Amino acid sequence: MGRIICTGLGPGDPDLMSVKSDRLIRAASHVAYFRKAGRAGQARRIVEGMLAADVTEYAMEYPVTTEMPFDSPEYNQALAQFYDAWADRLARLAQTEEVIVLCEGDPFFYGSFMHLHTRLQGRAKVEVIAGITGMTGCWNAIGAPFTWGDDVLSVLMATLTEQDLITHMARSDAMVVMKTGRNLPKVRSALRAVGRLDDAWLVERGTMPTQRIARLVDVDAEDCPYFAIVLVHGQGRRPEIGGLE
Amino acid sequence: MGRIICTGLGPGDPDLMSVKSDRLIRAASHVAYFRKAGRAGQARRIVEGMLAADVTEYAMEYPVTTEMPFDSPEYNQALAQFYDAWADRLARLAQTEEVIVLCEGDPFFYGSFMHLHTRLQGRAKVEVIAGITGMTGCWNAIGAPFTWGDDVLSVLMATLTEQDLITHMARSDAMVVMKTGRNLPKVRSALRAVGRLDDAWLVERGTMPTQRIARLVDVDAEDCPYFAIVLVHGQGRRPEIGGLE
Repeated sequence: MGRIICTGLGPGDPDLMSVKSDRLIRAASHVAYFRKAGRAGQARRIVEGMLAADVTEYAMEYPVTTEMPFDSPEYNQALAQFYDAWADRLARLAQTEEVIVLCEGDPFFYGSFMHLHTRLQGRAKVEVIAGITGMTGCWNAIGAPFTWGDDVLSVLMATLTEQDLITHMARSDAMVVMKTGRNLPKVRSALRAVGRLDDAWLVERGTMPTQRIARLVDVDAEDCPYFAIVLVHGQGRRPEIGGLE
Repeated sequence: MGRIICTGLGPGDPDLMSVKSDRLIRAASHVAYFRKAGRAGQARRIVEGMLAADVTEYAMEYPVTTEMPFDSPEYNQALAQFYDAWADRLARLAQTEEVIVLCEGDPFFYGSFMHLHTRLQGRAKVEVIAGITGMTGCWNAIGAPFTWGDDVLSVLMATLTEQDLITHMARSDAMVVMKTGRNLPKVRSALRAVGRLDDAWLVERGTMPTQRIARLVDVDAEDCPYFAIVLVHGQGRRPEIGGLE
């Protein structure tokens, strides 16, 4: 009797993977991961050099998206079929084998594996190993404390409307905005509307060798990297420095 | 020339510590950690069995709080002096030694080390190693996907007023409420007001051997554990199961 273990890989630096995920990945015989068709894949890249020589790899390639809009019913249907098919295949494999699924960040935090997890209920033994989320990696990459005291943190997807972004941002102390890409101008505009644009950072590929950290105001309007997160630090209450005086 | 390295320990299970923190802690000669006076301390407990035999330990004991209200100026002053004094001591030690500071969760996410980090700027070389946050450990302990699609996640401190909690909760899909303790009845009441009480979980010591997971509605009104987090899962959009049919 096998099982499926989804290992959170953390934000990108293999040294930030958990001891448990590291151990499972190095000992794995079957390794599956999501990627865009024709790409190496970010998850696979993180474990480069860690896999056994005789490992069997399963690249789960997302349906090609160029012909259909990302939010169309057709694309949604293609995605559903894609997850259905891979859930079937992994469930069969897990009858006899232990299969490690590699997932960037933490698997239960906006992760693709969740679609397999839901479909595998009652069909295979499934275990999930927590990972450091991409946002945690990004605020550490900036190198300053992120949330203090009673700070309210909002995690927002840039796919929300500008008005929704503004409503949430206006009531937040610290903020994380994910899924930026072509939505970055909207994020910038919303941050300006609530007076926080000057406090915002853009972190691309946080904790990876190619990481890029910039103040959002210094990023060109045409520059909309996909794997980037926008962060605004909280400034909550704290005991004053020099309390001895 | 030494330095201070703050290692995020993650949510509690030592197996969920990063490979880097694990390596640094096992090799450490000087280890410092916060704790309540007279207690073993949660951070110290997580690394039990990992420290070298000849390690020097520095227990940074919070000022005793029983005589003064937690939010009084006097307590705030005592805390400021406490952080000032330890920053001085660690800065001196780091002139020649490498000092590992142990911090639960992620050091930059509502962590006590941030008060030392701020005070050590320009006085010592300081490095911080990210960790899995307590909340990530807790939603993994529950074992279900936490945030989907465009879900808005709000991280709220139970020390906010009930009206503030309600305002934020009403606009959130997924929620994390920390610093619960004696504020738990207020949290419960706010969740009831926004119609989400039945969806809420209480996780105490998530990922630790003594972890406890309960639906918040099933927890006694008098039962207000301090190291507990309340979580409400998001239910965002996702491709339907059975997309092939």
